[in-house]
Amino acid sequence: MTDIIARDETASLISADKVEGTDVFNNDGEKLGSVQDVMLDKRQGNVAFAVMAFGGFLGMGEKHHPLPWDTLNYDDERDGYVVNLSKEKLEGAPTIERNETNRLYDRSYGEKIYGYYGVPPYWM
Amino acid sequence: MTDIIARDETASLISADKVEGTDVFNNDGEKLGSVQDVMLDKRQGNVAFAVMAFGGFLGMGEKHHPLPWDTLNYDDERDGYVVNLSKEKLEGAPTIERNETNRLYDRSYGEKIYGYYGVPPYWM
Repeated sequence: MTDIIARDETASLISADKVEGTDVFNNDGEKLGSVQDVMLDKRQGNVAFAVMAFGGFLGMGEKHHPLPWDTLNYDDERDGYVVNLSKEKLEGAPTIERNETNRLYDRSYGEKIYGYYGVPPYWM
Repeated sequence: MTDIIARDETASLISADKVEGTDVFNNDGEKLGSVQDVMLDKRQGNVAFAVMAFGGFLGMGEKHHPLPWDTLNYDDERDGYVVNLSKEKLEGAPTIERNETNRLYDRSYGEKIYGYYGVPPYWM
């Protein structure tokens, strides 16, 4: 049933609850971490960021990576999101500390993040 | 601190976690219920619906009302969302059962809901 819905042309909706906690993989199938939080843009009605937790991935404890929502692609087979990002790309990526999501309120910081991933900011 | 951020021009971001469970009031200050779930549109990157639980409000147990995200306005003083909707409007509103959010995958049902609240569907 879930698979049928997932393939349905109109079935692009998902509960925020279900996004959070979902695994994230790279193109090689390596698990990078999981979605920790989803940041919504109240004024514009967009999903602004998925905040990923990469626990100990870089050998220095859990770091949170805010990613443009567009970088995540759901993969039925893996039952998780796949991001087209190398480890090198992620190692140099902007990170925030846990509970630092208010840094994302700053549009210039947001632009920096979107720019790093080559995604045009939805607000510009 | 929270108030300062909430009034900041650029601070329109909010965590989906914080939206869920937030109280919802009408214009008269009556508490209608709370946000049960937030439905995200993966393909288009929009926040599609806030699903409100109005527990026993109509005397017939908890009903879930999917609302266009645009109908919710955050009110600092009440620390909750305010919707400009009368009880009569809500009584006639489209409802779904708990765990029936997959009904929202149907765009024609979505159009009906947006139409009921007079909000242009973001996908059209």
